Amino acid sequence: MPSYTINKISTHDARYKLPAGAGTDAVHTDPEYCMAVTLLGSDHGLCGTGIALTLGEGNRLVCEAIEMLARPLAGLEIEELMADFGSMARRLGNDPSLRWLGPHKGVVHLALASITNACFDLWAKSRGVPLWKLLLDLKPEEVVRLLDLSYVEDEMSAQDVLELLRNKLATRPEREHILANGYPGYDTSVGWMAYDDDKVRELTLRAIDQGFNAFKLKVGSSDAERDLRRAAMLRECVGDAGTLMLDANQRWSLPVALRRCRELAKVRPLWIEEPTHPDDIHGHAMLAHAIAPVKVATGEHIPNRVVFKNFMQSSAVHYVQADCTRLAGVSEFLTVSLVAKKFGLPIAPHVGDMGQLHQHLVLFNHIAMGHEALLLEHIPHLRSHFVLPAQVSGGVYKTPQEPGASCDLKPVSCGRAK
Amino acid sequence: MPSYTINKISTHDARYKLPAGAGTDAVHTDPEYCMAVTLLGSDHGLCGTGIALTLGEGNRLVCEAIEMLARPLAGLEIEELMADFGSMARRLGNDPSLRWLGPHKGVVHLALASITNACFDLWAKSRGVPLWKLLLDLKPEEVVRLLDLSYVEDEMSAQDVLELLRNKLATRPEREHILANGYPGYDTSVGWMAYDDDKVRELTLRAIDQGFNAFKLKVGSSDAERDLRRAAMLRECVGDAGTLMLDANQRWSLPVALRRCRELAKVRPLWIEEPTHPDDIHGHAMLAHAIAPVKVATGEHIPNRVVFKNFMQSSAVHYVQADCTRLAGVSEFLTVSLVAKKFGLPIAPHVGDMGQLHQHLVLFNHIAMGHEALLLEHIPHLRSHFVLPAQVSGGVYKTPQEPGASCDLKPVSCGRAK
Repeated sequence: MPSYTINKISTHDARYKLPAGAGTDAVHTDPEYCMAVTLLGSDHGLCGTGIALTLGEGNRLVCEAIEMLARPLAGLEIEELMADFGSMARRLGNDPSLRWLGPHKGVVHLALASITNACFDLWAKSRGVPLWKLLLDLKPEEVVRLLDLSYVEDEMSAQDVLELLRNKLATRPEREHILANGYPGYDTSVGWMAYDDDKVRELTLRAIDQGFNAFKLKVGSSDAERDLRRAAMLRECVGDAGTLMLDANQRWSLPVALRRCRELAKVRPLWIEEPTHPDDIHGHAMLAHAIAPVKVATGEHIPNRVVFKNFMQSSAVHYVQADCTRLAGVSEFLTVSLVAKKFGLPIAPHVGDMGQLHQHLVLFNHIAMGHEALLLEHIPHLRSHFVLPAQVSGGVYKTPQEPGASCDLKPVSCGRAK
Repeated sequence: MPSYTINKISTHDARYKLPAGAGTDAVHTDPEYCMAVTLLGSDHGLCGTGIALTLGEGNRLVCEAIEMLARPLAGLEIEELMADFGSMARRLGNDPSLRWLGPHKGVVHLALASITNACFDLWAKSRGVPLWKLLLDLKPEEVVRLLDLSYVEDEMSAQDVLELLRNKLATRPEREHILANGYPGYDTSVGWMAYDDDKVRELTLRAIDQGFNAFKLKVGSSDAERDLRRAAMLRECVGDAGTLMLDANQRWSLPVALRRCRELAKVRPLWIEEPTHPDDIHGHAMLAHAIAPVKVATGEHIPNRVVFKNFMQSSAVHYVQADCTRLAGVSEFLTVSLVAKKFGLPIAPHVGDMGQLHQHLVLFNHIAMGHEALLLEHIPHLRSHFVLPAQVSGGVYKTPQEPGASCDLKPVSCGRAK
């Protein structure tokens, strides 16, 4: 196998204006989707691209943190690095001069997300395979060395990981048909907060024509009647067989969330997402119990594996919305997926990467861990900015075939970064 | 009253080398204490100074975040700002372009800490009184407007704050003797990890001579026997009547923490601090139950009031180590103190400010809220850098009499910042 050494580390502060009204929710009225991009230059012009998602000018701080945090990667050969990436992830996550900015949360953790994702992208490109295939071809003992299991050993030790993956090996073929069929998606882009009712209806009917049957609506309006009216309208559009999800983006206090979730239960949503502050585990546990049979989803603002572990231990989440551009990258995403599998909880990623990288990871989760092939979020607004945008048709993600993790952005590459 | 308008906002990335071995713990072997300083220039040369604590070069990122986050303060008159500071704290904490870096944790929250502390300092200086006196002279309805109670309303509503403070008004005189007697301190500087046994013993005996009778020792060594030996030695130095605290600085996994805490219980520590990952509420709750009667202390890495609320709701902490240079400043420190009071838990601040600002806050907590006058941490290594270093003698903090919050650093001031 040829050798690829990381010989240039750079960043790009990528910011994207969205079409009018797109991306709006109860908390963010004028969002700018931003990617803190890590670029790992290597031999033969190969470039690893990693992304972390933020909103707005704070993105610059993540890029600066990447530059500080990524220094130990310089001069490392990618196969050697990935043979024990868990140790590197742990070392970077505990950088003594940056650790007090977290630990394991906020800007420094987002920087680690971007760096980690770039390493996995470079690795897959260097082997000439899509990331999902690289991951599926690893032995369980190779997978476990990608992970930093510190502080989750009480629920998921290295031995637990090995057993879980080995136990699923025999039945893998039953699940591999997903590669040909494609992974089911759901459409978040029909129900942004600033869209008027007519636009929500029109976009939903169009998406149904395109093959989707699962949709998300933003709620958490200051006008509770508006939420109820739009949710009922969306339920009518999708019919009894359609799937409807509601997302409050942390807007409600706990007492308000209890009331609103109960009111919205009548449209039979699959889940209500981020009903209150994302740190409030106790509050989510209370809600999850109080609003049954409606389920609680959360994750885009859960900072790390330790907090996810606590959510699961407290029965505070039903749908685990891990996001590898918000957690510490592919590595911690896999750790959270493993812990969720132990708790019998489904992973339904939040896609800070617009699904580009997660389309690989959900295939691994399904085939190697036995996670149900549930629904992968689809947000199309940035697709023209990716070199290889995810191919979604008939409501499913087509399995990517190109080498890497599908995160290269136009016109950003190792040669052209800042 | 003269009017003071914020007319210049600047920052200073202050970094301090420590004497050899000082500040070392199980996780940080070569610490550099850093202050992300906010400087609010105003009329007549008055300058408000706020600090947040970090370790190392990441401090720069907090300074940059301050510059982004503090913009809305420009041109505001300080009395008008502080008449409803809770609203401003909430607005800044939810800045849409920075919120995805948290929310309410990490770099952006540390920036809010520094900004908030500068506002309180400027306010006290503009009134010509020390901060403790300013706070004590406020009416309960003025105190409540300093606070952002969002997401803790389920445990501490505005009405709850008013009732708690009003109920304590009549008995205030009983507690005001603390102003003359001084607030008891404990000495963290005797037991740093890198100090050898002889040095720990020598420093402890010297501190006993100086009037201290409470001391902290760093544990979490890779050599468990070393921890036990030193803890036993310190217990021997301080005698049965002395107070001993142990601090593992997050070093242990949960299974290791369970074992080590039980072993260390034999030296009868008042608490064991940061036994495992600071995000692991469930783990702390299990530990708190398992190692009784030894108590659990934590807080310097608990990011905000919501997580503190969860710790208290879960019986996962006995000694609440809130720190106004790590939480969102004086304002969130007071909120956490109020929630702790409701739960009957003592506040024993971690002093990222080296006690300069906390010496004011513990007086308010004691007199206005009825919090027990327990122990305020004392770390003397930076005292030569403060314009008005805390006066600690006979083991107690002498009540500061100068206007402000005692956070001005030499030679940093509004005229001389970057």
